[in-house]
Amino acid sequence: SRSIRLAVIPGDGIGQEVVAQGLKVLSAALPQDVKLETRSYDLGAQRWHATGDTLPDADLESLKDHDAILLGAIGDPSVPSGVLERGLLLKLRFAFDHYVNLRPSKLFPNTPTPLAGRPDIDFVVVREGTEGPYVGNGGSMRTGTPDEVATEVSLNTAHGVERVVRDAYERANARPRKKLTLVHKNNVLVHAGHLWKNIFDRVGQEYPEVTTDYLHVDAATIFFVTQPERFDVIVTDNLFGDILTDLAAAVTGGIGLAASGNINPSGAFPSMFEPVHGSAPDIAGTGKADPTATVLSVALLLSHLGYGDEAARIETAVASDLAERGTAAPRTTDEIGDALAARVSG
Amino acid sequence: SRSIRLAVIPGDGIGQEVVAQGLKVLSAALPQDVKLETRSYDLGAQRWHATGDTLPDADLESLKDHDAILLGAIGDPSVPSGVLERGLLLKLRFAFDHYVNLRPSKLFPNTPTPLAGRPDIDFVVVREGTEGPYVGNGGSMRTGTPDEVATEVSLNTAHGVERVVRDAYERANARPRKKLTLVHKNNVLVHAGHLWKNIFDRVGQEYPEVTTDYLHVDAATIFFVTQPERFDVIVTDNLFGDILTDLAAAVTGGIGLAASGNINPSGAFPSMFEPVHGSAPDIAGTGKADPTATVLSVALLLSHLGYGDEAARIETAVASDLAERGTAAPRTTDEIGDALAARVSG
Ligand SMILES: CC(C)[C@H](C(=O)O)[C@@H](O)C(=O)O
Ligand SMILES: CC(C)[C@H](C(=O)O)[C@@H](O)C(=O)O
Repeated sequence: SRSIRLAVIPGDGIGQEVVAQGLKVLSAALPQDVKLETRSYDLGAQRWHATGDTLPDADLESLKDHDAILLGAIGDPSVPSGVLERGLLLKLRFAFDHYVNLRPSKLFPNTPTPLAGRPDIDFVVVREGTEGPYVGNGGSMRTGTPDEVATEVSLNTAHGVERVVRDAYERANARPRKKLTLVHKNNVLVHAGHLWKNIFDRVGQEYPEVTTDYLHVDAATIFFVTQPERFDVIVTDNLFGDILTDLAAAVTGGIGLAASGNINPSGAFPSMFEPVHGSAPDIAGTGKADPTATVLSVALLLSHLGYGDEAARIETAVASDLAERGTAAPRTTDEIGDALAARVSG
Repeated sequence: SRSIRLAVIPGDGIGQEVVAQGLKVLSAALPQDVKLETRSYDLGAQRWHATGDTLPDADLESLKDHDAILLGAIGDPSVPSGVLERGLLLKLRFAFDHYVNLRPSKLFPNTPTPLAGRPDIDFVVVREGTEGPYVGNGGSMRTGTPDEVATEVSLNTAHGVERVVRDAYERANARPRKKLTLVHKNNVLVHAGHLWKNIFDRVGQEYPEVTTDYLHVDAATIFFVTQPERFDVIVTDNLFGDILTDLAAAVTGGIGLAASGNINPSGAFPSMFEPVHGSAPDIAGTGKADPTATVLSVALLLSHLGYGDEAARIETAVASDLAERGTAAPRTTDEIGDALAARVSG
């Protein structure tokens, strides 16, 4: 009989609450014969305060021994900025070589958007996850003095760029519109930019059916609000992808709906799925957190593990739930989770 | 009697057309006793094709000998990406130490915006102009091979950050709302981020009346579309400023209205004023280009040179012109320039 060994990192703030709903919907969606084994990891602000650990080697080793990871949210104002991000979140992405950071953006019917005219938005950002300015290759000298110099180095390799670009072509090729847009800033960041553009053009020759396009990142933000329907699949660097996917979330109903997968397509390490939003300590414990982004991340997880039908059922459930929200009274985190689980199993 | 020695770089594409209107309005706005001397520089794609020059030392020297520079737009698809940007536009910003890249964003009445609900937008981005990932400190090895590595280094100095942060506090302090937001990504780019944040906090102690705020760049893009009225003055790094100001332009009527100043506040070198938009070769020569961004850049230029009343007259003229556009038939570049000049002199 089949089984899924799932590592769960609820994390901080609303992380706990939304992950609980994600697991609820996951159980409802899975076929009877699939055994779900979960193991929860206490990682995040609390653990750091108690022990000083962000992600010890023992946890990292034990996490490896799973089919996938579900993460809620990491971060708390009581922890200095960067400690948990670099020491836990990014450490996981790097250690498990999550080079495809997959972030779909879809404006569901009836979902509020700040954009007038409700454009038809349905695109996927393939954000590189292991290189660029995120590598942590920087430093400072004469720190804290009037002569301080601080650097951040963006590292880009042909190996790293080609594999994510190829993944993006595959995804574009599998979609009806078959369109792929590269976003970079190759008129200023000429070295990294040329590497990206050359590989993008070369790999494109293997995908003659995919229409391609290039946009500078600044111009891309304009189209995100004036013409988002022009995008199908976007491939971009780690930092540009970070910025663009928050903007994409904002125009498609907000960060409460944005799902993401940190994927290692080779399967050498478990992939990790998490909502794009943060730990939102201001609303933690109030029942106001929307678990939909986590539930959609569970759909990405299922799809990655080969449960495509179950993933589709979750997406349909979310779409119907959102479509009916307009008229309904606000619900708690738990109520939304229950409603989604009911739709999925019904 | 007073005089202004103005260097003019029309540049490529629509640059020529919009600069002509900018000069028209400038002449209309200036008091009778101010003598305007202009000298035009042939720089851009044409010159590069003819001679291989982007910005020779002789031109750079001669440009220095002016009170200000008005630039139209630079760039053409026939020139490899980066050649004119790095060799001309950015070279000017670096050579003349334009560390304050000033970009106001205002949603004028009656101007179209992609945002539902027409929020009240009136903020200024103070973008650092001489550091960060724009310094051109990068390279590649094993170029073009499967083992290529390409880098881009973001350089940040206490000197460079403090002067632009101080300028931003001054501007915030002079505005009614007195609010300054730092935008960075200090949870990931920890070295540069901490330098920025520490200086931001320290300099802030000298401006007790200014309310301060910090946002990660990804979160800032969300607020640009969901709550842009929360911003008054924003200070940020060169690359984040590039991205945010295009998005700001998009939500306040489009890139056809966005003005900018590349300012050296010390006066050691001439400051340069330019529309945020590019050379738009697709509409060059058709009379479709909107010269308003250039005209508003002329207002920034006048204000920088101490002609505050004249700058205000131009802004009022633009506001009235935009307010009446809704009902009017589309006008040519020239017609808009004429209308603005008439309002300014009337
Ligand atoms: C929390 C932070 C490290 C992270 C990132 O920058 O990638 C977040 O913004 C995201 O997009 O997942
Ligand atoms: C053309 C390019 C070099 C420039 C920049 O990136 O600064 C432009 O986008 C701008 O914003 O003025």
